[in-house]
Amino acid sequence: MQSFHKELWLHIPKRMEFMNITSDVENAICESGVKEGLCLINAMHITASVFINDDEPGLHRDYKTWLEDLAPHEPLSKYDHNLTGEDNGDAHHKRQIMGREVVVAITEGQLHFGPWEQIFYGEFDGGRKKRVLIKIIGE
Amino acid sequence: MQSFHKELWLHIPKRMEFMNITSDVENAICESGVKEGLCLINAMHITASVFINDDEPGLHRDYKTWLEDLAPHEPLSKYDHNLTGEDNGDAHHKRQIMGREVVVAITEGQLHFGPWEQIFYGEFDGGRKKRVLIKIIGE
Amino acid sequence: MQSFHKELWLHIPKRMEFMNITSDVENAICESGVKEGLCLINAMHITASVFINDDEPGLHRDYKTWLEDLAPHEPLSKYDHNLTGEDNGDAHHKRQIMGREVVVAITEGQLHFGPWEQIFYGEFDGGRKKRVLIKIIGE
Repeated sequence: MQSFHKELWLHIPKRMEFMNITSDVENAICESGVKEGLCLINAMHITASVFINDDEPGLHRDYKTWLEDLAPHEPLSKYDHNLTGEDNGDAHHKRQIMGREVVVAITEGQLHFGPWEQIFYGEFDGGRKKRVLIKIIGE
Repeated sequence: MQSFHKELWLHIPKRMEFMNITSDVENAICESGVKEGLCLINAMHITASVFINDDEPGLHRDYKTWLEDLAPHEPLSKYDHNLTGEDNGDAHHKRQIMGREVVVAITEGQLHFGPWEQIFYGEFDGGRKKRVLIKIIGE
Repeated sequence: MQSFHKELWLHIPKRMEFMNITSDVENAICESGVKEGLCLINAMHITASVFINDDEPGLHRDYKTWLEDLAPHEPLSKYDHNLTGEDNGDAHHKRQIMGREVVVAITEGQLHFGPWEQIFYGEFDGGRKKRVLIKIIGE
């Protein structure tokens, strides 16, 4: 069994934004040399997500509107979490909807994907550097 | 380490429906010969889910009502995604609530499950053929 | 490849509560002897979750309020599932928002975590004993 890991550093200036990291994952799989296995991709921060969906700007606008409706940023007083001095209570909720991680299959050295699957980093409390972990096991 | 994969083809005529695929996963585990390992089951399409819950028709009706409330199909103009000519903006949202994938443990050649766990394919934009991937690694 | 599993038994008296199980997972990783691999942690019951977020009491209160808003326990008649004689229709919905499982990386014999990541068991239908599964593969 082989294993491999890599941390990606990301800096998203906006509070909420989605970034396609599919090619970073493809590069990591290539570097790992793993031909058959599993690849975990997770946000290392608790106000961010990794998810798989469509790379379509209209959909991403829809997600932002929907998440803001389900867990609005303001009023800050809506969240007891913000009593700690933070202003990111909403981001901890948005991340639960969109998920922390994805696990993807590696087959014949490639992402085993359907036709439209793309991997995104979802930022809900931007303006600082954060990390995504890629962990690969297989052979 | 051994690896195995299998794609299931599914065709759900209704727009939204849930289908129990537990026995397909059990068969794949048996075919793989893996006794100890992990099994990933994921929708290969971005308007569908794989999730684990109860095989109880009342609950499935409740899920449909709830998902329709959280991300209604209509009006189509609610979603910028539908400006692309699609009418499935809602399905991309429903799938985020229910999830893309599950990872399950294989112990002594069997699904290592609690008493009520069943694996479902969740379709949110039916009427066409779609795939589910089963990927198994272990030994 | 090595594999290891362990079932945790939990008993949460309250209907809804979150319990930090990070040290249980760390102990299991230590027991397994795995230095590089993947660790699956999942609820074995379908009215409970395992998720990763912050160990901050204000946030946990916020989650409870939010989940009760998204899927209220009452009126019981809101859920067809409760026609079976159960009163936990809401719990099956809350669990879908918070997720069944997490998959975490093991690197150099440790949880490969960001600064604030903590693993929680989420109970949505407490008052009885339930299990969490920890499954580890790697070497």
